[in-house]
Amino acid sequence: MNPNNKKNKKQNPHKNKAKAPAQAGGRPLLYGIHAVTEALNNPDRTIQQLYVCDGVKVPDGITIAPTIVSKKDLDKMLPTGAVHQGIALDCSNVPEVGVEDIIIAHRAAKNSVILMLDQVTDPHNVGAIIRSCAAFGAHGVIMRKKHAPELTGVLAKTACGGVEHVPVAYETNLSRTIETLKEGGYFVYGLAESGEQSIGDLKPGGRSVIVLGAEGSGMRRLVMEHCDALVRLPTKPPIGSLNVSNAAAVALYALLA
Amino acid sequence: MNPNNKKNKKQNPHKNKAKAPAQAGGRPLLYGIHAVTEALNNPDRTIQQLYVCDGVKVPDGITIAPTIVSKKDLDKMLPTGAVHQGIALDCSNVPEVGVEDIIIAHRAAKNSVILMLDQVTDPHNVGAIIRSCAAFGAHGVIMRKKHAPELTGVLAKTACGGVEHVPVAYETNLSRTIETLKEGGYFVYGLAESGEQSIGDLKPGGRSVIVLGAEGSGMRRLVMEHCDALVRLPTKPPIGSLNVSNAAAVALYALLA
Repeated sequence: MNPNNKKNKKQNPHKNKAKAPAQAGGRPLLYGIHAVTEALNNPDRTIQQLYVCDGVKVPDGITIAPTIVSKKDLDKMLPTGAVHQGIALDCSNVPEVGVEDIIIAHRAAKNSVILMLDQVTDPHNVGAIIRSCAAFGAHGVIMRKKHAPELTGVLAKTACGGVEHVPVAYETNLSRTIETLKEGGYFVYGLAESGEQSIGDLKPGGRSVIVLGAEGSGMRRLVMEHCDALVRLPTKPPIGSLNVSNAAAVALYALLA
Repeated sequence: MNPNNKKNKKQNPHKNKAKAPAQAGGRPLLYGIHAVTEALNNPDRTIQQLYVCDGVKVPDGITIAPTIVSKKDLDKMLPTGAVHQGIALDCSNVPEVGVEDIIIAHRAAKNSVILMLDQVTDPHNVGAIIRSCAAFGAHGVIMRKKHAPELTGVLAKTACGGVEHVPVAYETNLSRTIETLKEGGYFVYGLAESGEQSIGDLKPGGRSVIVLGAEGSGMRRLVMEHCDALVRLPTKPPIGSLNVSNAAAVALYALLA
């Protein structure tokens, strides 16, 4: 549900401010305590303005002077229903990275795990996945340029600051990206209920990519065919699959813990 | 955003039908393909009526005759924004269970894992947790009577049928419930960042309870004090914690896989 609905756009380009405010740089605001404090600590971001609600304590460690706003005003500046915890931030986006950047950064690493998401679109799920990647020390997330949520708003909030620590590459062609990863020394596992090997039987460590597909439809056939191997979670019917962010967390734990 | 807004309630108690329809038994409808098909297969439910949208294929294995409705009508019968996939069900609730029922059902089991949620309120999270419990074969979920979501609507949808397979007990006093579980031969682990032992160091199997607290505030102090031991996930700062459903999935995998 894109808040910038066409009708509003045609009538008045500023109408969409109320739901997903375009700031000076055309960016939506970050919001939520963890998302904002981690963004403020990220030297790759240029900070424009910190908004804090009247009466809300500025979190420890924040040194920049906030602009005090009313809760009502902050509600208006953010998407409807945003759980902002009284704090929001206007800042530059995290720098764009490509799959090659992630590979080069970790070319000498003996242990390196990267996650690839094929058409996982729900920003809550992707945010939780990026948070888990940060917590378990995965080296990057790769998503498709089309059909992938941006690293702002509810995704950044759900990631609890994870977007500051995990590079996310948006790639056009995931099958080609898988081949690039293989050339970079990664073994590519597709997570699928049809996998013959359980993820618990894999040896942790090494250089691995885990590919997860959208819930319901799963990975696209071509993406699946490019994987080196398919692995499954050790789940039991009749409920054979997990929520995609839950599946990602288990896979990361299995390979990184 | 409670769909039963006050104005409607005052005017006419049946008005809230439009958003969270009270059926004959005062129940909201179940919706979503997995939630509905699993509920239809549950002999403990009494089925009143199956609603299927005009043009939507009735899922395989469903034998009861559906009432065909328009998408618009089904939208009206369900909470705003419900992702119903063209199918909804009016049926009796799953039978109520208590912690003793869960203990008795598995009193002879060498391996038995139960999850306890202390004030986890988000129905998406609780739904995903119940789904993971079903997938990994946990024997039950325990929540507090107060501050816990019901096993319907978005929770049941997110659980993807898990509510048919995992008994959920709502208890008044979780500290007392922990003592009951200990008497039933369970060792009670609280999952907390302050835990000394990593969950990966525990021996899988055995009779265990995992207690998870609300995100942010965590477990309440008294609940934590009643645990036999505190364990942590092997995560690394600065992002030290996972989304609660992700944490639950990892804990279940660690103890059950």
